[in-house]
Amino acid sequence: MNAEIIAVGSEILLGQITNSNARFLSNHLAELGINVYYHTVVGDNADRLKDAIEIAENRADLIIFTGGLGPTKDDLTKETIARHLSTTLEMDSEALESIQAYFKKAKRVMTDNNKKQALVLKDSEVLVNHHGMAPGMLYKTEGHVFMLLPGPPKEMEPMFQFEGKPKLARLLNKEDVILSHVLRFYGIGEAELEDRLQDLLDQQTNPTIAPLASDGEVTLRITAKTDTAEKAWTLIDKSKKEILARVGQYLYGYDDDSLASKTIELLKEQEKTISAAESLTAGLFQSELASVSGASAVLSGGVITYNEEMKISQLGLSAELLAEYGVVSEQTAKAMAEAVRAKFKTDISVSLTGAAGPDAHGDQPAGTVWIGIATEADTQAYQLQLSGMRNTNRLRAVKLALYYVIRTLTDYNARKI
Amino acid sequence: MNAEIIAVGSEILLGQITNSNARFLSNHLAELGINVYYHTVVGDNADRLKDAIEIAENRADLIIFTGGLGPTKDDLTKETIARHLSTTLEMDSEALESIQAYFKKAKRVMTDNNKKQALVLKDSEVLVNHHGMAPGMLYKTEGHVFMLLPGPPKEMEPMFQFEGKPKLARLLNKEDVILSHVLRFYGIGEAELEDRLQDLLDQQTNPTIAPLASDGEVTLRITAKTDTAEKAWTLIDKSKKEILARVGQYLYGYDDDSLASKTIELLKEQEKTISAAESLTAGLFQSELASVSGASAVLSGGVITYNEEMKISQLGLSAELLAEYGVVSEQTAKAMAEAVRAKFKTDISVSLTGAAGPDAHGDQPAGTVWIGIATEADTQAYQLQLSGMRNTNRLRAVKLALYYVIRTLTDYNARKI
Repeated sequence: MNAEIIAVGSEILLGQITNSNARFLSNHLAELGINVYYHTVVGDNADRLKDAIEIAENRADLIIFTGGLGPTKDDLTKETIARHLSTTLEMDSEALESIQAYFKKAKRVMTDNNKKQALVLKDSEVLVNHHGMAPGMLYKTEGHVFMLLPGPPKEMEPMFQFEGKPKLARLLNKEDVILSHVLRFYGIGEAELEDRLQDLLDQQTNPTIAPLASDGEVTLRITAKTDTAEKAWTLIDKSKKEILARVGQYLYGYDDDSLASKTIELLKEQEKTISAAESLTAGLFQSELASVSGASAVLSGGVITYNEEMKISQLGLSAELLAEYGVVSEQTAKAMAEAVRAKFKTDISVSLTGAAGPDAHGDQPAGTVWIGIATEADTQAYQLQLSGMRNTNRLRAVKLALYYVIRTLTDYNARKI
Repeated sequence: MNAEIIAVGSEILLGQITNSNARFLSNHLAELGINVYYHTVVGDNADRLKDAIEIAENRADLIIFTGGLGPTKDDLTKETIARHLSTTLEMDSEALESIQAYFKKAKRVMTDNNKKQALVLKDSEVLVNHHGMAPGMLYKTEGHVFMLLPGPPKEMEPMFQFEGKPKLARLLNKEDVILSHVLRFYGIGEAELEDRLQDLLDQQTNPTIAPLASDGEVTLRITAKTDTAEKAWTLIDKSKKEILARVGQYLYGYDDDSLASKTIELLKEQEKTISAAESLTAGLFQSELASVSGASAVLSGGVITYNEEMKISQLGLSAELLAEYGVVSEQTAKAMAEAVRAKFKTDISVSLTGAAGPDAHGDQPAGTVWIGIATEADTQAYQLQLSGMRNTNRLRAVKLALYYVIRTLTDYNARKI
């Protein structure tokens, strides 16, 4: 089964929002073994949407639409599909009740245009919206499956996950087992990684090995297609061993691991706590850790000292040290890490200080960052020179800090492959 | 001039990354008055890319490609375009030198596959890559303009902004002036806003009024198309006045304003400083403020107390208060805000405490949040009940906290329209 995802919304074509739904859906479709060959975005325009549907029908079996199910005049996805398929819309009483209940719960007045949201394609299976008003739909024709989902991710995601995806899984004729395993690397560039694996990449047929770089990370997705899960894992495992024998020292995790989740996992395993003193990143490091459910078991907290005065009054750094070495320096990074570790009584602590840009910080050019890591054993500091824009630099510094924490918590060279 | 943006990369179709480039480019093309009618994403597959190019040629004058210019075997954008247009690729000596210099600067060994990146379409204008290796290209045929840009946003964005966009502006036959103005609202739903403006939305022709909701914010984009900038602004201004007469009390900013930038702007104007004590959001509130360049003039910093113990030891909250009211309570939110304001000696302070989810926090269900705001005059606390997933809730809480700070700093009812 091949799929195309069509997002409907002029706001995407105007650049007001990103089509993040396509990513979410693609991820889940890949898990089902459904090949996604195209994403399309089209505006709130019936003629162009109709053209997009016709093109998609020629190249996909499953067409998933997101957006255009809302209450306003711009929302015309289901109306256009109904016209194209020569069918009609009818009021779904359950959806209407749920919309009324939603307004009641939110203590807001229901306006007339909201009723339009309860209209669904005749003979479609309704997908219930537990986080908003517009219901989704699954509609089958002779050659195609149409799935209509709302645009807001907080409505679309749970609807797809709990209603749409199970329905698709049942529709699939599951002869093939397709399994993927993602290896996550840090500290090695994409080209270098590929160079070291060139012969493996050249030979690949089953499993396939797909490299991907983003934000300083490189991943390899190994995908095997065969008739049983056991055989698929055997294929994947063999390929994985060959890869790790060459670049295993850069591996930090697998699949859904992130640098933050891996950090939390290691801290939990080792029963260690962490704190941070952030200047440059102003809380982004700790916020990344806290994005992982269960972080509170190991993250104690920390201090954000966004100016020099606060580094003195809140962390107890000496004015002399700051005057001699500057705020963006190895010495300051180390002193910040040590101070916050003592203050929050944690096993490990991290400090981040630097010039995010666009301006330099004193004599330190934009992009200069110092990361400090303090443990009971010692305090280390790492310098980075980043070349991105302000918020890219801040995020990159956070990722590098997480990477150094992981390195501190593990001995990469001793890693068992 | 109508445009289509084609992103090339299987990693997007596999859901490993989001096509954020399309948003960035759409935004800039809208500024140039170029209509973007479609976004397409296609994988690293020469046949399907060729099909996508043919479809795009039928419906767009300008086709912008992102991705597939890298060193690996998967990268085949320029090769496929060259074949489709019956032209060839040739080595660009400047690009090759720049790639060699890049490796020298990064102190990394240049592998052979990196040379492929210096190949460009014969007779194309080369767009220099200042943040990576692969050069971009602008190539004109009789009926179309092709622009090829690298995939990584940190390379693509500056290349388009400083090289691609000026070249497009020169290509355009500038008869029309198209100007947009965005009004930003908070605290009102999309349906309610539209209901109040229904007749204006029904009548709209020039200027057009386009509503958009995301993450609790609603925006209206007013776009006028005429022959002079002055006339366009007169049209926009008239429409804006009519809108603000009805819903002006929910307006918080314009155009590129964000809740964070507006907060920083107001604090600067009023020469006030801000601090925060974060539990739930673990630094995300302060990090949002720090994402605005120049935040250091008003953001002093704050404390992250991610467990109960730290609320006592770092903020001096009493164990009795926490025992009596709980960590997620009005009383705790107020005490946290007051404590951090005193500690960091700022004019205003914010606290965030709550249960982000998925688990409840004691007897407080997931999604319960308390926000405290302390000033010299008084301390207020606001309760929210959010229904999203963990990280949606954390972001929503930050946005609401920024909104309450803005409300505290301004008197909305007295706003001049």
